[in-house]
Amino acid sequence: MPATTSPQRTESRPGGRSARVRAAVHQAVKDLLTDEASELTIPVVASRAGVHATTVYRRWGSIAELLADVATSRFSGDIVVPDTGTLRGDLERYASDLAKDLCDPDTLALVRATIGTGGEQGAAACRGERQQQLEAILEREQARGRERPTLERTTDAILAPLYYRAVFTNEPLTSGWAYDLVSHLLSDENGAATAPDSASDSLLAD
Amino acid sequence: MPATTSPQRTESRPGGRSARVRAAVHQAVKDLLTDEASELTIPVVASRAGVHATTVYRRWGSIAELLADVATSRFSGDIVVPDTGTLRGDLERYASDLAKDLCDPDTLALVRATIGTGGEQGAAACRGERQQQLEAILEREQARGRERPTLERTTDAILAPLYYRAVFTNEPLTSGWAYDLVSHLLSDENGAATAPDSASDSLLAD
Repeated sequence: MPATTSPQRTESRPGGRSARVRAAVHQAVKDLLTDEASELTIPVVASRAGVHATTVYRRWGSIAELLADVATSRFSGDIVVPDTGTLRGDLERYASDLAKDLCDPDTLALVRATIGTGGEQGAAACRGERQQQLEAILEREQARGRERPTLERTTDAILAPLYYRAVFTNEPLTSGWAYDLVSHLLSDENGAATAPDSASDSLLAD
Repeated sequence: MPATTSPQRTESRPGGRSARVRAAVHQAVKDLLTDEASELTIPVVASRAGVHATTVYRRWGSIAELLADVATSRFSGDIVVPDTGTLRGDLERYASDLAKDLCDPDTLALVRATIGTGGEQGAAACRGERQQQLEAILEREQARGRERPTLERTTDAILAPLYYRAVFTNEPLTSGWAYDLVSHLLSDENGAATAPDSASDSLLAD
């Protein structure tokens, strides 16, 4: 099962002042990210959100932590784990949903900015629940009594190209290309299962 | 052949004042990137490099352009295209050299910061000559009269997992794992070449 909870650094009562401040500050970050001319600093964010800079400093500490919080909230619970009845169908749906998400300029700006300032913490926030979602898909295939690729292999074959293409290139993330990633992963697995002289090891999950 | 020239936004006479300023400013950026407490702004960079901030603004315009210039210079001509006699050998050498490079905390800090501020231009600067190097390896295999994967497929199977793991996770980039990426790519190609019922298309270069 995918984890549906995300680390929440600060307590907030839903609907309370704390929640309203958080929503306003998150929205200000998102607005500023789409405006290339703006600097992303705590005073600028605070001013746009209509709160005191000290409130933002007290709650998030630094722009890196604030961006990681926005990214964590953005990339949690956003993609539903598909259940199409087959591993291929699930992975195709998942890959094309993620491709669509990463194509969104707002998403991409948030990922890039968070990576840029957030170090390890920012990187983890940008991944969000992606690994857990993939794991849920793979575990469902295992429950069907079928062999399935490992999580590491699936990450290398599906998640990595999607993120690399979005963040490092300006090539389009089309559904057709995303489906091809799935085909390659699955034909790779089949080839390994039927080719005893294959040089690759630890391909299949135990 | 890999391109050995990189876009040079400003003219500089080797050894002249212009070259010395560029070297000092680049070094200041690298130093500041390793110091997490420092802010990376043009005034801070200029002060550390011992030059006027206006000199830096006039030459680079923004911190994003400056970072992209540092990244372009850092990721040009740094990895020699291997020539081991086989495609597998070349790709293994290449992948493990790149894994080693991306493991360097200084490299990673530069990539993350450049991605964070540089948009498309920064992303291109971080890739550097990687695609051209892979293309040179693939073209050499073609010159040997052998079938080889496409550049797109090789990018998805080798470059993407290396960059994704380095930038988005804190898992180690080991040589063994890098070799496995090559094995998967090549067994995938062989599987497709011998399996007429493969669902994947356009696997092999024409």
